[in-house]
Amino acid sequence: MTTMNNLGDLHLFYTPDIQPQHKAFILSEEESKHAVRVLRLSVGQQLQLADGNGGYYRAVITDAHPKRTVLEILEVSLAHGKRPYHLHMAIAPTKSIDRVEWFLEKATEVGVDEITPIICDHSERKEVKLERLRKVVAAAMKQSLSAYLPKVNPAIRFDDFIGHDFSARRFIAHCAEGEKEYLGNTLQPEEPAVVLIGPEGDFSVAEIQRATQAGYTGVTLGNTRLRSETAALVACAEVAILNRG
Amino acid sequence: MTTMNNLGDLHLFYTPDIQPQHKAFILSEEESKHAVRVLRLSVGQQLQLADGNGGYYRAVITDAHPKRTVLEILEVSLAHGKRPYHLHMAIAPTKSIDRVEWFLEKATEVGVDEITPIICDHSERKEVKLERLRKVVAAAMKQSLSAYLPKVNPAIRFDDFIGHDFSARRFIAHCAEGEKEYLGNTLQPEEPAVVLIGPEGDFSVAEIQRATQAGYTGVTLGNTRLRSETAALVACAEVAILNRG
Repeated sequence: MTTMNNLGDLHLFYTPDIQPQHKAFILSEEESKHAVRVLRLSVGQQLQLADGNGGYYRAVITDAHPKRTVLEILEVSLAHGKRPYHLHMAIAPTKSIDRVEWFLEKATEVGVDEITPIICDHSERKEVKLERLRKVVAAAMKQSLSAYLPKVNPAIRFDDFIGHDFSARRFIAHCAEGEKEYLGNTLQPEEPAVVLIGPEGDFSVAEIQRATQAGYTGVTLGNTRLRSETAALVACAEVAILNRG
Repeated sequence: MTTMNNLGDLHLFYTPDIQPQHKAFILSEEESKHAVRVLRLSVGQQLQLADGNGGYYRAVITDAHPKRTVLEILEVSLAHGKRPYHLHMAIAPTKSIDRVEWFLEKATEVGVDEITPIICDHSERKEVKLERLRKVVAAAMKQSLSAYLPKVNPAIRFDDFIGHDFSARRFIAHCAEGEKEYLGNTLQPEEPAVVLIGPEGDFSVAEIQRATQAGYTGVTLGNTRLRSETAALVACAEVAILNRG
């Protein structure tokens, strides 16, 4: 187990099946094709692997097979770049799915651990293509050289979500009248958090009431009117800023 | 001059030519068409106008002409929603212009006053379509119900930009080694700021040196690798969070 530095120039592959004790590893057919056919990597060239759960590996190609590229593992780092907090964002998917995908990409860069699409009273979109969203997150993880893959949960109804007993501080960001705090002023560093972000037409008054009764604190993310996906990203940035060293 | 409330449901039009002393106003041909043909607004219906410089107006339609809609001004508010700071973001345009446009939209929502595209040593994109960028910003201003239109300057070379004597704290965000601060830890509330954000391949070492000599402080926006446009938006969020009440 060593600390790895200066890996920024090596290509990163997402390999959820690798284990810390592995001395060698064979890339999947898709990743092999990408390594050998697209990136044109060859024997002796190095690359990086992330298992999505904090494991980060440096490896060298020993057989540049286009369907089953063989790697020798050179270095392993566990809990690589681990954040000192846990942030679960529950966001009503936007009418245009591009905006949710954009949020997933940016949140993965800035820092998020878990994302749940929630279906609300004012939701125009009632479903999401989970596999598509997970691909966006995996691509963003690789792009940002992170070892952690944010977990994207299936869509769930608002009431089912707030009925869940999370071991975390719970917040609902909304634009309605009433007493609200700033997320970064009430959340403590390292404290796990769940943050609800509503759809284009905001949460309904009834939803805000039910969330409050379920232990959610009303928060505002600023004085301007933010789109759903902007509000969600500002929340991620605010928690990241609160938690940095 | 009165305070205006509960205007969230009225459509907002961007009318840079309106003046506070106007009792009536005629919408441009394009805005008239939008009001009458697209939104189907008619005589007696109200709408809002923003001049992009803090002036915010409530008006009522007195002639729903599809090419020159006539309005009576009911209320005026100046310095509407004025932020207590001035933030100038200088960002190297990304190879894919979508990402810059995305940044412009989000920065307008979160809060930015001036944006200058800068051409750097590692810039793959050397030019931008200014009119297109300004349209994105105007649309985002309307969407976020803001009275201030961020100023989008023409693209300028990095050295020309840092040679300018801004009356503001100056920062360069980069990923190179060296002593760096967090923007929000060194900038004071209400202090005007200029922040440089580099291209996909970051600033060159020579650029960072020249900026430092020109009075720019090196800053980091977090521990993760952020895309250019993500870094730029995180900077806007950090300054907004620093300055809120």
